[in-house]
Amino acid sequence: MTLAPSDKALVPFVSVDDMMKLIHHIGVEQMISAIADEIEKDFKRWELFDKTPRVPAHSPHGVIELMPTSDGENYGFKYVNGHPKNTSEGLQTVTAFGLLADVYTGYPILLTEMTMLTALRTAATSALVARYLAPKGATTMAMIGNGAQSEFQCLAFKAICGITHVRLYDTDANASQKCKRNLAGRGLDVTICTTPEAAIEGAQIITTCTADKKNATILTDNMVGAGVHINAIGGDCPGKTELHRDILLRSKIFVEYPEQTRIEGEIQQLDEDHDVTELWQVMTGQVQGRTDEKQITLFDSVGFAIEDFSALKYVKNAIQGTDFFEPLDMLADPDDPRDLFGMLFRAS
Amino acid sequence: MTLAPSDKALVPFVSVDDMMKLIHHIGVEQMISAIADEIEKDFKRWELFDKTPRVPAHSPHGVIELMPTSDGENYGFKYVNGHPKNTSEGLQTVTAFGLLADVYTGYPILLTEMTMLTALRTAATSALVARYLAPKGATTMAMIGNGAQSEFQCLAFKAICGITHVRLYDTDANASQKCKRNLAGRGLDVTICTTPEAAIEGAQIITTCTADKKNATILTDNMVGAGVHINAIGGDCPGKTELHRDILLRSKIFVEYPEQTRIEGEIQQLDEDHDVTELWQVMTGQVQGRTDEKQITLFDSVGFAIEDFSALKYVKNAIQGTDFFEPLDMLADPDDPRDLFGMLFRAS
Repeated sequence: MTLAPSDKALVPFVSVDDMMKLIHHIGVEQMISAIADEIEKDFKRWELFDKTPRVPAHSPHGVIELMPTSDGENYGFKYVNGHPKNTSEGLQTVTAFGLLADVYTGYPILLTEMTMLTALRTAATSALVARYLAPKGATTMAMIGNGAQSEFQCLAFKAICGITHVRLYDTDANASQKCKRNLAGRGLDVTICTTPEAAIEGAQIITTCTADKKNATILTDNMVGAGVHINAIGGDCPGKTELHRDILLRSKIFVEYPEQTRIEGEIQQLDEDHDVTELWQVMTGQVQGRTDEKQITLFDSVGFAIEDFSALKYVKNAIQGTDFFEPLDMLADPDDPRDLFGMLFRAS
Repeated sequence: MTLAPSDKALVPFVSVDDMMKLIHHIGVEQMISAIADEIEKDFKRWELFDKTPRVPAHSPHGVIELMPTSDGENYGFKYVNGHPKNTSEGLQTVTAFGLLADVYTGYPILLTEMTMLTALRTAATSALVARYLAPKGATTMAMIGNGAQSEFQCLAFKAICGITHVRLYDTDANASQKCKRNLAGRGLDVTICTTPEAAIEGAQIITTCTADKKNATILTDNMVGAGVHINAIGGDCPGKTELHRDILLRSKIFVEYPEQTRIEGEIQQLDEDHDVTELWQVMTGQVQGRTDEKQITLFDSVGFAIEDFSALKYVKNAIQGTDFFEPLDMLADPDDPRDLFGMLFRAS
């Protein structure tokens, strides 16, 4: 005999297929913008959250991380791996899934794929931050590194910052071709460049998103002119950076959560007490973002748990009344909570 | 159009219903014994594992924890809550699910309910430890606290330690009745007692498993005679203990992982440098367990990530060739790993 599980035992699960359907249902730019709004709201109530650096398990092959946080009402965490060597084996560098739970009961209330969702929330965060920091009237972005994240970044900057032109560069020309092809007909003027120097010509915003697990120098100091905003996404674990140290020394640096960024971000190249500005304080208006038009602003992005939390909450609400999820029989829920054994043996 | 996900994108999922079927297929005592064997093997290679105290999120209502570990080949973690107030609202105090991943790729390879599985692994650990520490020829166990874990404990001690008699006590007589009813016809002589003092009469092993989130005194010093083994399961978070401090001072104390037990176990009542023995060292033979027959041995159990890891690996193997799982479309897996966006838009 199989007993049907009770409602309490069932956790809504959003598969990759369901997530793709949800994104098409809402529209990719609209969904990125809506997630950015959620992230902004949560950054503005930053002090409410339980914050901890993510919990990593490093190996010679890559890293597996858990990223938990809570606002006291909901608890969320993401499982995410980072395996740059995977690409050459036909696998994703980054895969992820996430969970939202009710703090009051401890019961999970959403399980979802987060590979797609992380691409959206990362792009949403980048563009949200640039809306605060980039020079006014920016229209052109250099996109250096044209992998899995690149199209999402370009569309986020279009939707949120009004970018109209993107200039692509990748060490692999096929990646740039793929990115351009995917962006065709989406209202962006796309130029493929054969050097990083060419890509940043005339760009007010420079996004770097490369995936090597090592210290690389995607941008050198002489390439970066006054007044630009740099959105540095790729440097996100110990020993993995993208920018020359001299650029950092000339920039005003903005971070999500200093305790984590000092370990994982570009600023791991700097002294531990090097001055950085926390983005949540810029968003609440407590501190100023860009202070003059000649300033180089740098978002040293590593990705923080609150961004995933915001995205999970967004999805939890967005699937209400849709078919873009299935109930998963994940929690044992006996009629008498003390009688787990009885539940087991009545099922036989 | 819906594209069928590739094999790499599919994660085997064991639902509560599947887990119950698996347990019946294997037999509950057989499965507890087999998990105990896995735990013993993993404790014997303790030094190989990445170990960290679990990552808790405390609230006034309870706690939500993540428990990760890795042996370098596999990575596992468990999500588990502890909400003692849930029982009065018709919910489980503890619910859990777990995940096993491949360290080489970072890809998940098993997702499973772990409410049932945790009950089995906790009982397996308790009885495994007692096989090392309890007085020789023990036949009677006092089971104090007759909630969701109690039947699993009794059967584990029968299967692994040869216990033939159990003496039940709970502040709620209905819980004891439920436990006795569930154990009927399973080869154990079961006596319900109306006081804890009566329950421990003639018992060589005393198991305490109560769920209040506070410092309680289930056993006082004068109740515990020479030579017994105490299996203290219920004290497992800060501010939650079951035994009077004086019992601890008379006992030789054994723990899973001191860094975690000092925060969560009975020994939070003692000085930080109070001598404790690590169980893995007893199992490898590096240090002695019980040193004389008059000694009180105490397993200050809090539950450690390696036990869940062992259980996850057991389940991963046990479901091979069975129908007790379903493939879950949890990982985005585009043909070209750099083309996540293309995968999204080809799906529209």
